[in-house]
Amino acid sequence: MSITLALDVMGGDHGPPVTLPAALTVAKERSDIQFVLVGQEEIIQPFLQQSARGVPNLRLHHASQVVAMDESPSVAMRTKKDSSMRVAINLVKDGTAQACVSAGNTGALMATARYVLKTLSGIDRPAIISTLPTMKGHTRMLDLGANVDTEAEQLVQFALMGSVLTEAIDGKREPTVGLLNIGEEEIKGNEQVKQAAALLAASPLNYVGYVEGDDIYKGTVDVVVADGFVGNVALKTSEGVAKMITQFMREEFNRSLWTRLAGLLARPALKGLKGRIDPRRYNGASLVGLQGIVIKSHGGADSHAFAWALREAAKEVQHAVPQRIKQQLETLLKERQSA
Amino acid sequence: MSITLALDVMGGDHGPPVTLPAALTVAKERSDIQFVLVGQEEIIQPFLQQSARGVPNLRLHHASQVVAMDESPSVAMRTKKDSSMRVAINLVKDGTAQACVSAGNTGALMATARYVLKTLSGIDRPAIISTLPTMKGHTRMLDLGANVDTEAEQLVQFALMGSVLTEAIDGKREPTVGLLNIGEEEIKGNEQVKQAAALLAASPLNYVGYVEGDDIYKGTVDVVVADGFVGNVALKTSEGVAKMITQFMREEFNRSLWTRLAGLLARPALKGLKGRIDPRRYNGASLVGLQGIVIKSHGGADSHAFAWALREAAKEVQHAVPQRIKQQLETLLKERQSA
Repeated sequence: MSITLALDVMGGDHGPPVTLPAALTVAKERSDIQFVLVGQEEIIQPFLQQSARGVPNLRLHHASQVVAMDESPSVAMRTKKDSSMRVAINLVKDGTAQACVSAGNTGALMATARYVLKTLSGIDRPAIISTLPTMKGHTRMLDLGANVDTEAEQLVQFALMGSVLTEAIDGKREPTVGLLNIGEEEIKGNEQVKQAAALLAASPLNYVGYVEGDDIYKGTVDVVVADGFVGNVALKTSEGVAKMITQFMREEFNRSLWTRLAGLLARPALKGLKGRIDPRRYNGASLVGLQGIVIKSHGGADSHAFAWALREAAKEVQHAVPQRIKQQLETLLKERQSA
Repeated sequence: MSITLALDVMGGDHGPPVTLPAALTVAKERSDIQFVLVGQEEIIQPFLQQSARGVPNLRLHHASQVVAMDESPSVAMRTKKDSSMRVAINLVKDGTAQACVSAGNTGALMATARYVLKTLSGIDRPAIISTLPTMKGHTRMLDLGANVDTEAEQLVQFALMGSVLTEAIDGKREPTVGLLNIGEEEIKGNEQVKQAAALLAASPLNYVGYVEGDDIYKGTVDVVVADGFVGNVALKTSEGVAKMITQFMREEFNRSLWTRLAGLLARPALKGLKGRIDPRRYNGASLVGLQGIVIKSHGGADSHAFAWALREAAKEVQHAVPQRIKQQLETLLKERQSA
């Protein structure tokens, strides 16, 4: 099977200097993937003629405009109809590509993808799902910020989408699903979470119950479901803790000549640690729930990280994630009707 | 000034083996603090006659019952009127002690404290506030799980309480206050957060705007305000990340003879790191908004950690935190009326 990916070359904090080398790396390792490089011809053409010369699976698709990282989604939608982001999504819509990858403005990407591709029937709003490292391997969490004030029914949709994606990509039968909650106050959880728990318990999903913040990294469940506000705070907080610990470690190893020497000797172990928590390995969040595959790379991603987002996109194409979500949704709705 | 603290000796996962040695440690270092050890006489009396013999600032107050860690708060309230937890709080109510410290069941502690002590006039519900380490020093965050589905007006009360407590204890003039939000979706934040932002901007507090999850540990602001659901998830998630990184580090240093040797040499640096992120140093969350001081220790705290909670209680007494919150609240309400 040949896969075609549309790349928003201009998106992200760094744009072409990051996206083009990443495309080249993955194009060389995967001859089964065709890359459509969407963006300004005057930037992409020289790259194709020089660095990427003779690489057959890269091609240019000109788009004259660029969506700025801080641009309002509604302004971008109205005034940037020939942006690299919009055109890349259009290519998925018209069937030229099976997935689009962008490191651009999240709000604009989400709004444009929803407008152009539409959500799957039975899905109210798309969600952002990503992979996170855990003590046991990895887990997937959604929503990471596309939706706030999420209703119980939407949380159930998130659970279904996360479950299908995990089953498809990891080949894991009936992935375990947990609902992010707190264990502290008198009557556990807020209203939406309590209602969602009841709906999930009655669903065919492998719902195992509530999980707390620390369960994410314990790897208690395969899929962690949360409102987008909560999920985004959890994700950003995690990044903050990891950065703080990394900084403290650097400071402690720089404290004296002795600790610096020890740091030198400990380098292999510290490098091993760094590799395991390297967020670049987990780059490439998916906007699930759309009639098409859209992968969001971290805006600040480097080439190494952006390449991971490209590989993630290819996996979702290979495993036909949106089609599987559609099927599962239909099954769920039928079961409810007959129940 | 002499300070009297009432200790729920029986509370926590470990009870007396943790709480009693902690009390002894702090009693020896602080002759200005009187400790009332509330719990079962048959356990506390032998301790006072043996390990704590001759230490003048420890005394027993018998309470026959114990609230279990997994007991429902309403059942505890109804059936455990002579529990160590309830009696310790009663001692604050009747003025015998100025603060109470418990490692017991959070829900029961919160419910009992609210029932016995009542909230300050102008405060709808108490909140849980704790100190967290940051790249720059420390910050305080609330609510950590006492309230879910928090209204905008309550978030403003949290901001005021956090600000007053920080000013009182750290001696920091006009601490900066940030509202925890997300930066990802189309229109930032949920409804409550947006409304709270407007109210805070119009308040006399030093409100600096929205912060995201990673700002907590960057130390961007002195006080981070969040709904209890969100705050609790952020806290627990942080614990999870720190534990995962610690485990990965252990595994990497155990990988081979060479890395084990390097780990040995790196021990001072690793120990320094451990000390800086040691959650025990930050043990002792405060239930703010009550007419009295109630400090909640982590249930799983060891003696070292529980001693920190005792010191935190003493600080809040010395700086008259509830009285200051009351004053500031009155000022805020007057300003609003005259505006």
